[in-house]
Amino acid sequence: MSTWGKNLKISIFGESHGPAIGVVIDNLPHGYKIDINEVVLQMGRRAPGKDITSTPRFEADTPVIQSGLLNNITTGAPLCALIYNKNTRSTDYNNLVRTPRPSHADYPAYLRYGGFNDIAGSGHFSGRLTAPLVFAGAICRQILSTKNIVIGAHAYEIAGIKDTPFDMADITYEKLDELSHRTAPIINPDAEKLMRESIEKARMDCDSVGGIVECAAVNMPAGIGSPMFDGVENRIASIIFGIPAVRGIEFGAGFAASKMRASEHNDPYYYDSDNIRTRTNNHGGAIGGITSGMPILFRVAFKPTASIAKQQDTIDLISKNNTKLIIKGRHDPCIVLRAIPVVESACAIALLDLLMDCNGKI
Amino acid sequence: MSTWGKNLKISIFGESHGPAIGVVIDNLPHGYKIDINEVVLQMGRRAPGKDITSTPRFEADTPVIQSGLLNNITTGAPLCALIYNKNTRSTDYNNLVRTPRPSHADYPAYLRYGGFNDIAGSGHFSGRLTAPLVFAGAICRQILSTKNIVIGAHAYEIAGIKDTPFDMADITYEKLDELSHRTAPIINPDAEKLMRESIEKARMDCDSVGGIVECAAVNMPAGIGSPMFDGVENRIASIIFGIPAVRGIEFGAGFAASKMRASEHNDPYYYDSDNIRTRTNNHGGAIGGITSGMPILFRVAFKPTASIAKQQDTIDLISKNNTKLIIKGRHDPCIVLRAIPVVESACAIALLDLLMDCNGKI
Amino acid sequence: MSTWGKNLKISIFGESHGPAIGVVIDNLPHGYKIDINEVVLQMGRRAPGKDITSTPRFEADTPVIQSGLLNNITTGAPLCALIYNKNTRSTDYNNLVRTPRPSHADYPAYLRYGGFNDIAGSGHFSGRLTAPLVFAGAICRQILSTKNIVIGAHAYEIAGIKDTPFDMADITYEKLDELSHRTAPIINPDAEKLMRESIEKARMDCDSVGGIVECAAVNMPAGIGSPMFDGVENRIASIIFGIPAVRGIEFGAGFAASKMRASEHNDPYYYDSDNIRTRTNNHGGAIGGITSGMPILFRVAFKPTASIAKQQDTIDLISKNNTKLIIKGRHDPCIVLRAIPVVESACAIALLDLLMDCNGKI
Amino acid sequence: MSTWGKNLKISIFGESHGPAIGVVIDNLPHGYKIDINEVVLQMGRRAPGKDITSTPRFEADTPVIQSGLLNNITTGAPLCALIYNKNTRSTDYNNLVRTPRPSHADYPAYLRYGGFNDIAGSGHFSGRLTAPLVFAGAICRQILSTKNIVIGAHAYEIAGIKDTPFDMADITYEKLDELSHRTAPIINPDAEKLMRESIEKARMDCDSVGGIVECAAVNMPAGIGSPMFDGVENRIASIIFGIPAVRGIEFGAGFAASKMRASEHNDPYYYDSDNIRTRTNNHGGAIGGITSGMPILFRVAFKPTASIAKQQDTIDLISKNNTKLIIKGRHDPCIVLRAIPVVESACAIALLDLLMDCNGKI
Repeated sequence: MSTWGKNLKISIFGESHGPAIGVVIDNLPHGYKIDINEVVLQMGRRAPGKDITSTPRFEADTPVIQSGLLNNITTGAPLCALIYNKNTRSTDYNNLVRTPRPSHADYPAYLRYGGFNDIAGSGHFSGRLTAPLVFAGAICRQILSTKNIVIGAHAYEIAGIKDTPFDMADITYEKLDELSHRTAPIINPDAEKLMRESIEKARMDCDSVGGIVECAAVNMPAGIGSPMFDGVENRIASIIFGIPAVRGIEFGAGFAASKMRASEHNDPYYYDSDNIRTRTNNHGGAIGGITSGMPILFRVAFKPTASIAKQQDTIDLISKNNTKLIIKGRHDPCIVLRAIPVVESACAIALLDLLMDCNGKI
Repeated sequence: MSTWGKNLKISIFGESHGPAIGVVIDNLPHGYKIDINEVVLQMGRRAPGKDITSTPRFEADTPVIQSGLLNNITTGAPLCALIYNKNTRSTDYNNLVRTPRPSHADYPAYLRYGGFNDIAGSGHFSGRLTAPLVFAGAICRQILSTKNIVIGAHAYEIAGIKDTPFDMADITYEKLDELSHRTAPIINPDAEKLMRESIEKARMDCDSVGGIVECAAVNMPAGIGSPMFDGVENRIASIIFGIPAVRGIEFGAGFAASKMRASEHNDPYYYDSDNIRTRTNNHGGAIGGITSGMPILFRVAFKPTASIAKQQDTIDLISKNNTKLIIKGRHDPCIVLRAIPVVESACAIALLDLLMDCNGKI
Repeated sequence: MSTWGKNLKISIFGESHGPAIGVVIDNLPHGYKIDINEVVLQMGRRAPGKDITSTPRFEADTPVIQSGLLNNITTGAPLCALIYNKNTRSTDYNNLVRTPRPSHADYPAYLRYGGFNDIAGSGHFSGRLTAPLVFAGAICRQILSTKNIVIGAHAYEIAGIKDTPFDMADITYEKLDELSHRTAPIINPDAEKLMRESIEKARMDCDSVGGIVECAAVNMPAGIGSPMFDGVENRIASIIFGIPAVRGIEFGAGFAASKMRASEHNDPYYYDSDNIRTRTNNHGGAIGGITSGMPILFRVAFKPTASIAKQQDTIDLISKNNTKLIIKGRHDPCIVLRAIPVVESACAIALLDLLMDCNGKI
Repeated sequence: MSTWGKNLKISIFGESHGPAIGVVIDNLPHGYKIDINEVVLQMGRRAPGKDITSTPRFEADTPVIQSGLLNNITTGAPLCALIYNKNTRSTDYNNLVRTPRPSHADYPAYLRYGGFNDIAGSGHFSGRLTAPLVFAGAICRQILSTKNIVIGAHAYEIAGIKDTPFDMADITYEKLDELSHRTAPIINPDAEKLMRESIEKARMDCDSVGGIVECAAVNMPAGIGSPMFDGVENRIASIIFGIPAVRGIEFGAGFAASKMRASEHNDPYYYDSDNIRTRTNNHGGAIGGITSGMPILFRVAFKPTASIAKQQDTIDLISKNNTKLIIKGRHDPCIVLRAIPVVESACAIALLDLLMDCNGKI
């Protein structure tokens, strides 16, 4: 389903070439002032055409709010926003079903929906559906910011080229705030240059590249979350895998933890004046599903954009033969930069939902 | 919470040194014959003392079934099983709260539960709570096996030493079936020898090592799952992060996909006689949240066991000073081998829950 | 929350005087042809101004579909429909908060939302929010009708005047189909006449009357539902209490069952040719939460419309004194007739959700 | 399913003649001292053999706690309690399936579970499964009592004989506390005498009678709950219909509201010193799903016990003929008195779950 959440519920709808896409956010905390310009700014970070690495296609992605705000303050009633589509259905896409695109949802979706799903522009499976997710995240992060909680991410790696990683135990509010307002949040300008060259080279080769997004949040209070299936990691992971092209997620030291010894990996506690902190943050801000007060930190792996102009092998579902496919249209040679605000947004929604747990207090 | 599931609900309870731990499985499909010996065998794979890499402590972990089975056939009513604890509370563990163990849930749980949580043997946060998870998984995999679905895993990596990885596009029922009955499922005997040496060396150093579990399932039908937040990856990830010490999960090519180009990563479809397959399986069996019919494949990163005999830095919550801690008792120098049946079990529960989606069919 | 459902999720949004109200229906079965005229017809039954007993105000309530339909066939992706409001915010309603209307949600909502809720036209608490519920129900009943399941209701009682009740054990498809297309579904014309007189009298007295809706569904298969908390009655009741002004629900013989002996109340089984039926249907089509194959039958009590022109006692929340209130505007002297399609719609949503249970079958 | 709850989850398991029945309560607030004697006392009110109107059979129903309590204080971890069955499976009950008992779940359950459900003593459908519900309720009401919230109920009506009803707007803590400790909570001794005579007469006639339970709770704070589908009424109704034999529920004036005019039904607000109250309480403590601060009040209709010794008509599912049935064993001629603590318990669970909503506050 396209519904997520325990305390708040987001319900995302829409198909790429239908009239509109959008989201309903149910049970949002009331009384929070929303800066719509900031929301539009966040949506703009995801929109195509803002960075040369993405498609030259330009979509304004203006949210049209239908409910839940009064004088720009959350009412507590479900907040619904629509984003009207510019590209609406005009042509016959039936050929796409016949020859499913490799590593796209075409074929699995065809089976799942008996061929009734809308395939124009990938329908409900389009990356465009991350626009309402960013909208919802932009609302949630403004609420979180009243608690001084800020979320930021950067291109940890693109096409195998690494950016300067976060210093996991020492991430500042200012750094995350700055990154969360950039269209291309890459810390190291030299890495950025190499990344852009790799992306450009892939484009020239009618190919695409993937990468890793590193996301952090600071000032999340300690003691939030629950053990087993309802913890920080479970809930962040379950929403993050809702972003197209995600292939993995790791917290703190992540997969590298598997190569470490405990004496190296364990994070010793210490008193920093009266504050309890850990010297390192290999745990990524949550242990046993519960926040420690250290920065929440996770990385998300993105595969290379599946749509490439290069000829590919596939099948013809009607003639039942193997065949070749050339995908037409313009496609992002790398979606990692546009994915950064999406990851931040999913994180914001998850953290707000976690904060809304009563945590056994009545 | 310790409750998981959409169509079936598992509810795990118990504290390490309380009278018993156990699980309720609600809405289990009815009419399935359960081989209790096979369940006990699976639980034995997780139990300590079976392999020299784990603690010499021996726990029988016999499930005592209270409901839901009649003549060993599922009735469809909630199935409850208890596992009685041998080590029940006897000593005062209050010191443990005072000086929280690094990278254990002690301190976050102390905040979350206001100090009222049972800390004896880590209480509800104990790795022992994976025993009822294995029980539930063992029930689910027997139901899945009637559809020819089998799940198996191996120690993909321990202490940085790699086992022979799965050939992702060509995993056989027989291979998984064999692995899923071994106590130390490592494919390459040479790797196993090196892994055991590394574990032994860590033990001698009063330290511990981590590793990666690679898990696969074959014969899952194509077209199962849903886009966005309710897909194969979301649901597997959300249950897998319920296993203590998990730090990351990746599907198919996973984090390595981030270094690939699409021309290399995309999985071309082809007809294998009448069957539709992909040449490679970088997608790990699910695209857009929906199964493709190819093997489900994911890897799970485990951190090194946090409890080590080495002296560590920590804090004293009462005197509010930095202090030192030595953890007493016997601890696994590597929990990866024991974690393998736990990962398989969580996967089995998730796949059965997915199969129970109506998928829009009434 | 304004989200309901287990297998399908409906998420209703909007405030009475905001830009639009609407609904997202997630996980709807795919491949079902929707007759939009029939949907509009159902919505028209609920709209004001269709029957003299309701307000003379006329609202078209045209649904504008944003997603989930392609060539009028359900795609399986979330279906979103908007209904634009004609009366949008224009005046200052702050006085209404100061002197809460008796038996309206004004005061409880004020506390719940800290005064941030939109109170214009009752905001999200408006009876107008039943329009998207009827939309969703109209979609669901078209899907149910492909299984020959039909739902109909009538004004069982208004202002104490009883209509001819359903013969619970013998309700026909044709009867329900006919009722479900009428604006004023009352079986007995003499009762209708008396009801209308009572309503008119209440209107002249600046007062209002309540009533009871009796709703039935036939051809629901036997064996659907689950015991305890997930049964037919639990799920129908939980959605029905989402309709404003509902004060009670009873199934089959209902409250009258409490006065009967078992020898009178028990429904004996018999073979009607090869079909298993019960001679009477005091159980209302479900026993132990599971359908019996007999008609589903329940009654819903509606209180008199709380908004009346008569002067009423209330409080002034600012001066903290007792005071008097006269509610301005036109209000329905009886909402029972308009509530009938709402009850049918809620029933349709619940029955479709129930049908989508896998019921232990994989 | 047998799982209920949003913030806390109760999962009830067991079959009447299996080894044990019980319940897991997940996410219970931590740090609350539980008086086990009081829990046992509440369970005793439900147990058979305590009142002459019930079966002479005696069951101790001692809860054996497996987890979640430490020194009788809630730890916050799932609390599991078992109640061992004295009557375990010994004989062949297969004849019961062949000739389903009228108005029992035998036949619907047979279809739902394909005949695999345990039918001994009605299996999971047994009224005995209300014992763990009372256990869970007894825990919850002790937590609620720390907020001065108390819940009590009485036999509003049995066999058509009415007890003195609650004065809805003026119910005291003391009255509810007293009722909630009685085995036969009937307010009017004359009514009690007549009720007992009616029950005894029904027993002599090999028949049974039904009744209505009226339940109230005081000191529930105002402003708790949510509109539409997640309100006080929805959640109480959804758990109450989990009690066997319930046929209806009404809040406040309930079905009688349908015969009233608004001028009579509306509850005027007034200041009682600084407290805001309503003169009458026809709304039953919740408007629009949200508490008003007035007593929560609802009534629950129970059908007469379906199991009677009188010969009844039924079918033979094997010979496919109509036949006669005589049910053996001892059965309660009236379950209303034993149902009273069950209704109170379900109410307690629902109110605690409601209190645990964050209500938009972070």
